[in-house]
Amino acid sequence: MAMPSALDELVAALRCLPGVGPKSAQRMAYHLLQHERRGAERLAAALTRALQTLHPCARCNNFTEAEICERCLSPQRDPTQLCVVEMPADVNVVEQSQAYRGLYYVLMGRLSPLDGVGPRELAFDRLLARASDGVVKEVILATNLTHEGEVTAHYLAEMLHARGIKVSRLARGLPLGSEIEYADAASVAQALLDRRDY
Amino acid sequence: MAMPSALDELVAALRCLPGVGPKSAQRMAYHLLQHERRGAERLAAALTRALQTLHPCARCNNFTEAEICERCLSPQRDPTQLCVVEMPADVNVVEQSQAYRGLYYVLMGRLSPLDGVGPRELAFDRLLARASDGVVKEVILATNLTHEGEVTAHYLAEMLHARGIKVSRLARGLPLGSEIEYADAASVAQALLDRRDY
Repeated sequence: MAMPSALDELVAALRCLPGVGPKSAQRMAYHLLQHERRGAERLAAALTRALQTLHPCARCNNFTEAEICERCLSPQRDPTQLCVVEMPADVNVVEQSQAYRGLYYVLMGRLSPLDGVGPRELAFDRLLARASDGVVKEVILATNLTHEGEVTAHYLAEMLHARGIKVSRLARGLPLGSEIEYADAASVAQALLDRRDY
Repeated sequence: MAMPSALDELVAALRCLPGVGPKSAQRMAYHLLQHERRGAERLAAALTRALQTLHPCARCNNFTEAEICERCLSPQRDPTQLCVVEMPADVNVVEQSQAYRGLYYVLMGRLSPLDGVGPRELAFDRLLARASDGVVKEVILATNLTHEGEVTAHYLAEMLHARGIKVSRLARGLPLGSEIEYADAASVAQALLDRRDY
């Protein structure tokens, strides 16, 4: 007996959210039913609409409602630069930096052989086709500075070099505002290796 | 420009979930769209169904799909004991203890004057009517052992006593398996005050 099944199903369904275990799914379900019925209705509608309308942009692979997203179609952007990131959230962060006016390509992941994610799963051939359109002059690899991100960048760099495309990588070093005393040894080592003339 | 509006709306709608801020709402939206499209579909359906079918049980105030929930109707339960808890999740925990076979009443909150939650908002009159049905012999107050839970229990005890109903409170003391050395002073004090003959 115990809980009614519409409630069980809601708790189970909430567990598809990242980082949501059984306890917090239960807490969320009760919260929605008691305090957020409007919010829950809105969420159901937003999920349905998002699933129906959002799909990968034919050019940058980011989510869009059109065939090609607004950013890829914008005449304001420099089409000779292509910045490759792992995830859509990374695009937002690069945009916020206001230091880039080129276009993007979103891998939707990173190489991770242990999880069965290889070049095929990430559709590297689509990125290579995109980068070889004759307009792109430089590919900027902005994958994460993690082990998997570095391996992904290295692999992509090899493939792009083989096609004669200029490739660059985000600078590694110490974050702005950081104090040497508290920096990790690997970042200090990298900052020394990549030191620039002053 | 930037993000398309079905995505914006999904991110905004996810923020009705407790403990979900802008960053995690965005992460959840991308996760659902990329890895959990089935899960998102299921969640939308479960939300809609739960909103349509779940409402408070006429007897215990817990969520149910029927007018009176299965537990309140069960002949296996002792109708002379009524356990008052703050939230539906508390019912589940008391059930798991396997130490109680009576019925429940769920307040759906606790007294919290600063948040504008008083006896009227918690519909104490409904609980009093429920406890005065002539069958209930004892009301066990199982509100939290927090300041607000204690105030709620105290207030309810006064009202129930005034109607000549027997009232009890969960025992306060040291948790099973705990070591005195690491116990907090308030719990030790309570355990001393409420010491039992051996």
